[in-house]
Amino acid sequence: MFTPGPTDVHPVVLRAMAEPLINPDIDVRFFKIYDSLCNKIRKVAGTKNSLFLFAGEGMVALDSAVANLVEPGDQVLSISSGVFGDGFTDLIKNYRGKPVVVKSEYDDVVTPNQVDRALEKNPRIRVATFVHCETPSGTISPLRQIGKVCNDHDLLLITDAVSTLAGVPVNADKNHVDICLGASQKCFSSPPGLAIISVSDRAWERIKRRKTGVESFYLDLKTWKNMWLKDRTFPYTQSTSEVVALNKSLDLILEEGLNSIYNRHSVVAEYVRSSCEKMGLNLFPKRQEICSDTVTVLKIPSGIGETKLRERMRTKHGIIIAGSWGKLAGRVIRLGHMGYNAQKAKAERVVEALSETLKSSK
Amino acid sequence: MFTPGPTDVHPVVLRAMAEPLINPDIDVRFFKIYDSLCNKIRKVAGTKNSLFLFAGEGMVALDSAVANLVEPGDQVLSISSGVFGDGFTDLIKNYRGKPVVVKSEYDDVVTPNQVDRALEKNPRIRVATFVHCETPSGTISPLRQIGKVCNDHDLLLITDAVSTLAGVPVNADKNHVDICLGASQKCFSSPPGLAIISVSDRAWERIKRRKTGVESFYLDLKTWKNMWLKDRTFPYTQSTSEVVALNKSLDLILEEGLNSIYNRHSVVAEYVRSSCEKMGLNLFPKRQEICSDTVTVLKIPSGIGETKLRERMRTKHGIIIAGSWGKLAGRVIRLGHMGYNAQKAKAERVVEALSETLKSSK
Repeated sequence: MFTPGPTDVHPVVLRAMAEPLINPDIDVRFFKIYDSLCNKIRKVAGTKNSLFLFAGEGMVALDSAVANLVEPGDQVLSISSGVFGDGFTDLIKNYRGKPVVVKSEYDDVVTPNQVDRALEKNPRIRVATFVHCETPSGTISPLRQIGKVCNDHDLLLITDAVSTLAGVPVNADKNHVDICLGASQKCFSSPPGLAIISVSDRAWERIKRRKTGVESFYLDLKTWKNMWLKDRTFPYTQSTSEVVALNKSLDLILEEGLNSIYNRHSVVAEYVRSSCEKMGLNLFPKRQEICSDTVTVLKIPSGIGETKLRERMRTKHGIIIAGSWGKLAGRVIRLGHMGYNAQKAKAERVVEALSETLKSSK
Repeated sequence: MFTPGPTDVHPVVLRAMAEPLINPDIDVRFFKIYDSLCNKIRKVAGTKNSLFLFAGEGMVALDSAVANLVEPGDQVLSISSGVFGDGFTDLIKNYRGKPVVVKSEYDDVVTPNQVDRALEKNPRIRVATFVHCETPSGTISPLRQIGKVCNDHDLLLITDAVSTLAGVPVNADKNHVDICLGASQKCFSSPPGLAIISVSDRAWERIKRRKTGVESFYLDLKTWKNMWLKDRTFPYTQSTSEVVALNKSLDLILEEGLNSIYNRHSVVAEYVRSSCEKMGLNLFPKRQEICSDTVTVLKIPSGIGETKLRERMRTKHGIIIAGSWGKLAGRVIRLGHMGYNAQKAKAERVVEALSETLKSSK
């Protein structure tokens, strides 16, 4: 499986999934594991903010962030260079906010200058949504510079770091991220089913001052603040096994060390990109500098169908790679080299198989 | 662990949690497992309706049901005899519906007559919420009769069957349940992390005719209808390992046979109730007939603290039992005998330990 999340899962983490259950509602051992896990994720994200986990997929965290930070009528900056950026625009509309969109094509990213100009023009904007890595198109955006511009304009910044956390540096606090979003199945290489959210004091302040309530119980961050952060009671039964497994993933990550992990991602990504270009494939992103080190997206050469290509990779080589969605469907293939899958040996096998598949398809 | 969900998990199911991941977005093997699992749950629920699973805890299904069936200003009947019934009333208010509440005390249940009278008085009501078993207080309500009354008044019935599905008969279609809600960690005895929802054609019709949108992406049932049921694409990455594990739980359940399972729950519950009464404990529910066969809730004798009692059960006997919440906190203990935990031998150990603990506390 060389897909951009879910990734293969380390055997040690899989074994943790099979441990007998601890009661998450009343057993203090579970509370300790949960606290410890949140602290470890804080280290990876580079944040001292409140942090907790939803039972659910990454999307539940994106949905919750917008549900809580946006009120009807609010102007919200949507910085979008891809499928998930556009998704944020839709979420803002759903919650009856008014998105002010700064966009780029999917093979490019939005520049800090574009963001600055939009904010100069719309001084009432107080919240921005931003996607660090667009997994469907393989681009990574300049979080540091965009975080700075947003901070200069005194904005609250919601950042989808789902496919960068534990793969490339995020440094949430340094980069002025108020809400940082993640998921278990990307670079953490745990099974899917947990969504991560961190919330800054400024974001809590804004939530406190809302004039309207958040309709959903499940997505309401106030519930977490009042029940878990204050009273140490979970709002609902937590996904014990997945929490225990993700905790194990974080142990492996911190044992290896973040610098070593970022380096490993960078080396493998560089190898995948250059090897693919050598075999005549074109990267989907316009420039090398905006290619994410967690996923490589390649244009499909004319004359080869995406389905056929992926099918041959699977049946002949036992390797599962991904296509993409929306307007990218059928036009690109995606190689995920994140987390446990960011290994040179694995990447070499995939590159060889891809090369063979392309030759045989001619 | 003798708590009313999560329960202990069968070793075969735990092993399934540790299987290497299948890609849930693109691997057809996963689609087959998912379909097969949904069909098995349909058998247990007694429904031919659409059925699918949220990545999330049971609460996400309750939240979604109300989010989708209730529009601002709608009068909605809330049938409440406990914590979760009251929770539905809150959800209805959150979504700006107008709850018409028929209530009982927590140690009793609402009668079909009460429901009938409320509906006679409020003929504009089109939706009702109902909790089959109130896990915090141990009562079970007469679903068959209440379903009939609701159907006579042409209502859409939302039923929380979280702690009855696969423990006592639900017969959703026969009992006119339009939205049936469940969770993986109760009588299915799988780890927590999956919520179950079934949706009748009448309910889909009402959702289609909504004048206002559902704000949340994650809770929106239309997304599931358009993406999964129509286009066979999941709205987000599914919790592979938990789906595979729950599928294994369902295999065990259907292998044993539903009648045998219902009988096992009934025998163990009867044993627990009578043994506890013999040792001088009083059942919290007013009458035997309204005691659920999945959980027994007992009043704590005066002079013994709940925490101390539970603590001694844990340290001396290695058995974890539950307290309760809200206005029941500190007043009752709860013995969960659901799913894999509904075994005579286990129940005997718990009863003995409880008897010893009570004697030693005198």
